[in-house]
Amino acid sequence: MSVIESLQWRYASKAMNGAQIEVATLDYILEAIRLSASSYGLQPFTVQVISNAELKNKLTPAAYNQPQINKSSQLLVFCVWNDVTEAHVDAYMQDMAEQRVVSLESLAGFKAMILGAVKNLSVEQKQTWAAKQAYIALGTAMVAAAEQKVDATPMEGFNAQQVDEILGLDKQGLKSTVLLVLGKRSTEDALASMAKVRRSKNDLFNFLN
Amino acid sequence: MSVIESLQWRYASKAMNGAQIEVATLDYILEAIRLSASSYGLQPFTVQVISNAELKNKLTPAAYNQPQINKSSQLLVFCVWNDVTEAHVDAYMQDMAEQRVVSLESLAGFKAMILGAVKNLSVEQKQTWAAKQAYIALGTAMVAAAEQKVDATPMEGFNAQQVDEILGLDKQGLKSTVLLVLGKRSTEDALASMAKVRRSKNDLFNFLN
Repeated sequence: MSVIESLQWRYASKAMNGAQIEVATLDYILEAIRLSASSYGLQPFTVQVISNAELKNKLTPAAYNQPQINKSSQLLVFCVWNDVTEAHVDAYMQDMAEQRVVSLESLAGFKAMILGAVKNLSVEQKQTWAAKQAYIALGTAMVAAAEQKVDATPMEGFNAQQVDEILGLDKQGLKSTVLLVLGKRSTEDALASMAKVRRSKNDLFNFLN
Repeated sequence: MSVIESLQWRYASKAMNGAQIEVATLDYILEAIRLSASSYGLQPFTVQVISNAELKNKLTPAAYNQPQINKSSQLLVFCVWNDVTEAHVDAYMQDMAEQRVVSLESLAGFKAMILGAVKNLSVEQKQTWAAKQAYIALGTAMVAAAEQKVDATPMEGFNAQQVDEILGLDKQGLKSTVLLVLGKRSTEDALASMAKVRRSKNDLFNFLN
């Protein structure tokens, strides 16, 4: 399916049927997340990929008992880094030096640029910035899932503190920012057959020719 | 191209060649933005689609003279709503009632739910929330552009206050949040041939099976 066909097919399913996604299909969606654009290429987030039924059960009350979680194939928890540190940037420079076969010294200017941009941000601003990068990946993941006829329901309505506690995220230097439920839509979801409502082209865009 | 092939093809071009995108292709990318997922379906943002050369010129210093803007086909300026008001939600309910052929009364619960979620947020929190929705659309737009072999360079490095002034956004109740330059990569861009550097699967994901 093309991107437009995928977007027309998708919706945020409120009821999943419990079916599991094939391993290769899950890998495809995760690869789309991994390849997503990110400011400086830094990818300042980590994604928990939860297949474990017990853990999904435990997390459900923290997401106001939304039934899709238990009936999902995977629950993805996008987590921002609690802080963006020089150690993070160094690890990225190391990756870049290896993958592009260049010296670390040749990347010193790029490293200084990233650190210069980050040092003026408060911890909260860094987390907001990291969350935006996670949302780029979230948008990409939803297109990739739809292309593979996998339903993907994003969720902002959850108690982040509870999710962080259940998953022990704080100890990992992480904070949950948005959820994505992957699975297959139930035929019982009345929303599935409803028209997608979007602002008109003339309302959403302002053309300056 | 599949989503993965599109993501592998794309990169954030630092040099465009001045070529213009076909009208139908631009329409395709904008339609992908329009169909993007958004919390509650509200789409609390507006996108300036700038083809005007003089305006691109004027905006270039506000984006630290990044040369892609002048050599772009279109500059997209994603703007968040300065506030999310009951009037916005009412307009959305009106659209929904028309497009789904249901009564406004039947949507009262949904309207109350959106307003209930929004009323606890400060103006700044509403803008951050709106920006995240814009970033979902940004992520979607980059995949759609790449699928069509259009280069798309996102830019967070710009003076938002200056951009807002030049475009008169405040009077429209808007604030610029992120830019996307659409065009065709120049063969002179050394970055075009460099390996894409991304965190490894085991680093970016934490599997809880």
